[in-house]
Amino acid sequence: MDYREAGVDISAADAAKARIKGLARSTFNAQVLTEIGSFGGMFRPDLSRYREPVLVASTDGVGTKIKVAILAGVHDTVGYDLVAHCVNDILVQGATPLFFLDYVALGKMDPVRVEQIVSGFSRACAEFSCPLIGGETAEMPGTYAEDDYDLAGFIVGVVEKDKALPRGVREGDVLVGLPSLGLHTNGYSLARKVLLETLGHRVSTHLPELGMTIGQALLAPHRGYLAALEPLLERDRLRALCHITGGGFPGNIPRVLPDGLGARLRRGAWERPPLFRLIQKGGGISDEEMERTFNMGIGMIAVVSPSDLHEVEHSLERRGETTFVIGSVVQGAGVSWE
Amino acid sequence: MDYREAGVDISAADAAKARIKGLARSTFNAQVLTEIGSFGGMFRPDLSRYREPVLVASTDGVGTKIKVAILAGVHDTVGYDLVAHCVNDILVQGATPLFFLDYVALGKMDPVRVEQIVSGFSRACAEFSCPLIGGETAEMPGTYAEDDYDLAGFIVGVVEKDKALPRGVREGDVLVGLPSLGLHTNGYSLARKVLLETLGHRVSTHLPELGMTIGQALLAPHRGYLAALEPLLERDRLRALCHITGGGFPGNIPRVLPDGLGARLRRGAWERPPLFRLIQKGGGISDEEMERTFNMGIGMIAVVSPSDLHEVEHSLERRGETTFVIGSVVQGAGVSWE
Repeated sequence: MDYREAGVDISAADAAKARIKGLARSTFNAQVLTEIGSFGGMFRPDLSRYREPVLVASTDGVGTKIKVAILAGVHDTVGYDLVAHCVNDILVQGATPLFFLDYVALGKMDPVRVEQIVSGFSRACAEFSCPLIGGETAEMPGTYAEDDYDLAGFIVGVVEKDKALPRGVREGDVLVGLPSLGLHTNGYSLARKVLLETLGHRVSTHLPELGMTIGQALLAPHRGYLAALEPLLERDRLRALCHITGGGFPGNIPRVLPDGLGARLRRGAWERPPLFRLIQKGGGISDEEMERTFNMGIGMIAVVSPSDLHEVEHSLERRGETTFVIGSVVQGAGVSWE
Repeated sequence: MDYREAGVDISAADAAKARIKGLARSTFNAQVLTEIGSFGGMFRPDLSRYREPVLVASTDGVGTKIKVAILAGVHDTVGYDLVAHCVNDILVQGATPLFFLDYVALGKMDPVRVEQIVSGFSRACAEFSCPLIGGETAEMPGTYAEDDYDLAGFIVGVVEKDKALPRGVREGDVLVGLPSLGLHTNGYSLARKVLLETLGHRVSTHLPELGMTIGQALLAPHRGYLAALEPLLERDRLRALCHITGGGFPGNIPRVLPDGLGARLRRGAWERPPLFRLIQKGGGISDEEMERTFNMGIGMIAVVSPSDLHEVEHSLERRGETTFVIGSVVQGAGVSWE
């Protein structure tokens, strides 16, 4: 007997590694000291412009968005989503990326599939200037179905200690919402159940109200907000940022507000995109359940001083962003609606 | 319809997070600035003793050792294994740990199960002085069977740039092997197939030659070699370290040798532990296949100058290590056997 008969193909793993190496190299900068394939990825951070640098690290997955990728046969976008998700997660602490690592676990080691997945990572890593310095690709027959896989991403960034967010949030601060591009990476178990089971659509179903297929709408990329928000970070115009991920508004906004303060939001402040309306209607889902599951069209919220609002809106709009004033910080706790 | 009907229980996730928080806090040191639950974990590294600090990052999983944990109903050891694996992976670059993050994906969010898993992480993180500063716990029905899960770990450490390993490996250097405590985290698909299918054992089967049950033998911890090797790192007595992980000797030793050099090993230099002999005999597996799949009883190899050998052995033995001179560095490439 050999390892291959037990379902693990080391030759295929070597072939996959060779494909990954070039993709990762395309994301490198001068701070990366090792090729992919070392036990550890080495990164010499340039911390000269920081007085008191703080490392900010985060890990995440993309949930069952992967199931949609598999149904649609599109594997080069979920890696992008995961990097963007991680970039946003450290951005809300005020940090900019240093480097990224990926974990890919598959039912069957298919070097072509792995290359597609990693190309999504490398595209995003290049876009966000966040080198892909290491990773693990594991073949786990029995845990994953032959066509199935899971991804985890790990990011490390840096922030000046006294510039870390949230910082100085007060009653009366304004919540400025930035649009998402779809579900990002949350709520896919519910969305798939409604769209693909209850409503009986397929990923190839084209819906006029979406202007695209179900698969395209569900695979719309997770937006990374670094480029839009970095100038405002540098000019100290942000008191907090909130990434709307699993748990939606009520699960995320309180994470960045001090004790004693809550958020009051206005439902009419922005239009919920058609995909969310389709899921809500198709599943007969309450507003509350929608809002604690999905981002509802708002992927990131900036908490700003009322006196900075005009400058913030102007800066974001100059970068092509649409902005919505969706509410304000109030006495209390949690999220309430006008 | 709601998210719970789609298989995702946010209340259970909140309960799990509460349990994780205390476990993680027990691993903190003064450099950790955030509680678990922030978008990103914040860590202020003390780099004052480094002239040119280099961050070393690595990610890994524990493979299908998790399948054994599930069969045995023991969930508080695989997290330990994963931290030890990651600590070893950066140790071979000469780095000591700064912090760790975990990714736990489950078919069903069971707060008790999650707490058991994370207790393994926190025990190891405390042992290796490597705070657990963040993580993700994802419920993914449809990807994982209800009782199944997967783990990924992510570590960041630091090394002085000019002390990074490997460094100056030469022909004639000596390979000193340190014992493993079992399969560590590699080869479980093959081991399970042979032991639980071909030989028909159960995890509860007690075998006299093992002195324990199959489950106990397969769940023996992945050893972390930091405490044993750190004094030698500090005294510059190591030219390279090699962690014997997936790919065994031929897959790992060449990763730390310069071009033009290979390793010549002696099979009789140490006794293969009974578990490996049992698997080899039970599966009718060749020496070559065993050696490219399993660690064969050697979990870490130190490459040292012949003039330092005595000091290295003495230092390791004072820390309770058994050491084996298992071979030497020779002209050529790859791994060959006397």
